[in-house]
Amino acid sequence: MHGTEVRILGISGSLRKGSYNTALLYAAKKMMPDNSELEIFDLSGIPEYNQDTESNPPEKVVKLKRKIKEADALLISTPEYNYSIPGVLKNAIDWSSRPDNPFDEKPAAIMSASIGAMGGSRAQYHLRQIFIFLNVYAVVKPEVIVTFASEKISENGELKDTEVQKRIGSLLNKLIEFSIKLKQ
Amino acid sequence: MHGTEVRILGISGSLRKGSYNTALLYAAKKMMPDNSELEIFDLSGIPEYNQDTESNPPEKVVKLKRKIKEADALLISTPEYNYSIPGVLKNAIDWSSRPDNPFDEKPAAIMSASIGAMGGSRAQYHLRQIFIFLNVYAVVKPEVIVTFASEKISENGELKDTEVQKRIGSLLNKLIEFSIKLKQ
Amino acid sequence: MHGTEVRILGISGSLRKGSYNTALLYAAKKMMPDNSELEIFDLSGIPEYNQDTESNPPEKVVKLKRKIKEADALLISTPEYNYSIPGVLKNAIDWSSRPDNPFDEKPAAIMSASIGAMGGSRAQYHLRQIFIFLNVYAVVKPEVIVTFASEKISENGELKDTEVQKRIGSLLNKLIEFSIKLKQ
Amino acid sequence: MHGTEVRILGISGSLRKGSYNTALLYAAKKMMPDNSELEIFDLSGIPEYNQDTESNPPEKVVKLKRKIKEADALLISTPEYNYSIPGVLKNAIDWSSRPDNPFDEKPAAIMSASIGAMGGSRAQYHLRQIFIFLNVYAVVKPEVIVTFASEKISENGELKDTEVQKRIGSLLNKLIEFSIKLKQ
Repeated sequence: MHGTEVRILGISGSLRKGSYNTALLYAAKKMMPDNSELEIFDLSGIPEYNQDTESNPPEKVVKLKRKIKEADALLISTPEYNYSIPGVLKNAIDWSSRPDNPFDEKPAAIMSASIGAMGGSRAQYHLRQIFIFLNVYAVVKPEVIVTFASEKISENGELKDTEVQKRIGSLLNKLIEFSIKLKQ
Repeated sequence: MHGTEVRILGISGSLRKGSYNTALLYAAKKMMPDNSELEIFDLSGIPEYNQDTESNPPEKVVKLKRKIKEADALLISTPEYNYSIPGVLKNAIDWSSRPDNPFDEKPAAIMSASIGAMGGSRAQYHLRQIFIFLNVYAVVKPEVIVTFASEKISENGELKDTEVQKRIGSLLNKLIEFSIKLKQ
Repeated sequence: MHGTEVRILGISGSLRKGSYNTALLYAAKKMMPDNSELEIFDLSGIPEYNQDTESNPPEKVVKLKRKIKEADALLISTPEYNYSIPGVLKNAIDWSSRPDNPFDEKPAAIMSASIGAMGGSRAQYHLRQIFIFLNVYAVVKPEVIVTFASEKISENGELKDTEVQKRIGSLLNKLIEFSIKLKQ
Repeated sequence: MHGTEVRILGISGSLRKGSYNTALLYAAKKMMPDNSELEIFDLSGIPEYNQDTESNPPEKVVKLKRKIKEADALLISTPEYNYSIPGVLKNAIDWSSRPDNPFDEKPAAIMSASIGAMGGSRAQYHLRQIFIFLNVYAVVKPEVIVTFASEKISENGELKDTEVQKRIGSLLNKLIEFSIKLKQ
């Protein structure tokens, strides 16, 4: 499998500057094996979706859709707001999935972090159901659910927790392996 | 119970002009009993939520939060996008629920419509889970799930289906009764 | 509210002798206010549900249905098996809900305990969806989700954690108050 | 890929003799391509799961676990009871998944049928969440959701609807292809 490269598109569900979930993506970027790369896409600046204008999407959405189409796999890191994924992330998915669906048959992996005890798990299960519609194939395990994130990620966004680092590394390996298998 | 008035705030999850879900709200408005009223709030114009700016919300969000706080009950009519509620609706909820929560202990009812065979049911169950966080008390039955909406709602937004009309009427009665009980 | 009595039927989703969830029910029983009572029903001995024989249910199911019908409210304490409620609990619900539905319009409250970090929360959300079909009105908050249960409940089933005790007390108060309001 | 054989274990969530879901499995069996086979396992006769006795499972459970372990893939066809999967199916999963997990990394596909308009879709999403714990990789699309089953399946269990036949055929192809890819 030498020479194989898996290009992963990373998306954070939070726009907050000091976002723990964005921090997880940057931690993942540092751990990427040589045969693969992770590009992080910033969702800020996407207006509200309206079906009346979907045939004329904003520039940012056009770019996001192209990035999704070009990627071999997706890595989504999302906070949990109100026991589900953020509206910001859902709105980006709503725009991107219409009228054509660049997500179709893509492999993906999910991470979540929160300052509380549940670590965003409820958001992950909602996102997995959304993936059914999108026809996205999500890695099942390991689940990366980062509880009490403020104790594990420093103020400048450095992931300090070695247990979480290991889980992310193992998730990345699984995503890459899964992507290669699905491509065959 | 004479003189009791239940003020319901209606919110559509779709911004589309000819939205079937907005049409359901207008159909409900016509059916309201004398002791109650339904005001419909338009979600358009709410920017993306960012926790960094939540202490300084846009004018539209301030207004929405005040309307929610003043209402005795909520009626949400939502399409299903990608097997969940629209990002637009979720983003409005994310803004409104922070840092204080005007939804707390409000009674609510849910309707959904789609042109397909599932009628938005999957969106309803996600919304119900979101309600747990918000501490919203949702009416359980009847479930108003409008399948094949384009056959039941005319192009100018008139609800023609008498079966659906009856279900909406019965949902409204239940919501009003439930709201009065909870207030006591 | 003098003389009002709320009779609650408690059901544990686990048949294990030293079950943490059964222990939560016994802890709740001790905390019941004077105007109310909690009876705990043991689910053991219910055979597999088969629609072919539902018109001739086993004695245990007949008794369970009668107990549900007579109760003013339900208190369900359930472990999480495989990210959902136990088959044992679901099978008891499947039997009880057919062909007539004694759960209809009953108020209910949910607790869960597990030895892990998530405390059975995923089981609770599945049970809440099941309640929609049953037309059960579940108390929303407080959510009683007991994580790391083996540290909080002694080997002889004594709940030692005062924080959890307080939450259960507050859930019981809410369930009783909610039941009285719904009955009016 | 010559000589490759994918052995699928089929499980019905209903014990009813005339079960529509069991009928779907038999319809699938007839459509199996030459390189693969489908064996249907009958869940009847599995007693209630109790963690106290899990180290000494009943014979039927021992057999089910062995069949799962030997299979290359699973095909589950399930009715929806009370907006979730039947307790009978969940109980079989609870027994089988403990203390070791023969489901680990198995590919699977899901079908559901009901006489109503929703076709068991809600049960499918619960089962998909259960699969996360089990580390099962479920085929995403096509979703086989058979609505109004009594119009599409004859009294003697013959699937007459050609649209549903096509979907099942396409699901089987996908499951076999997916299983072969994951094995590599």
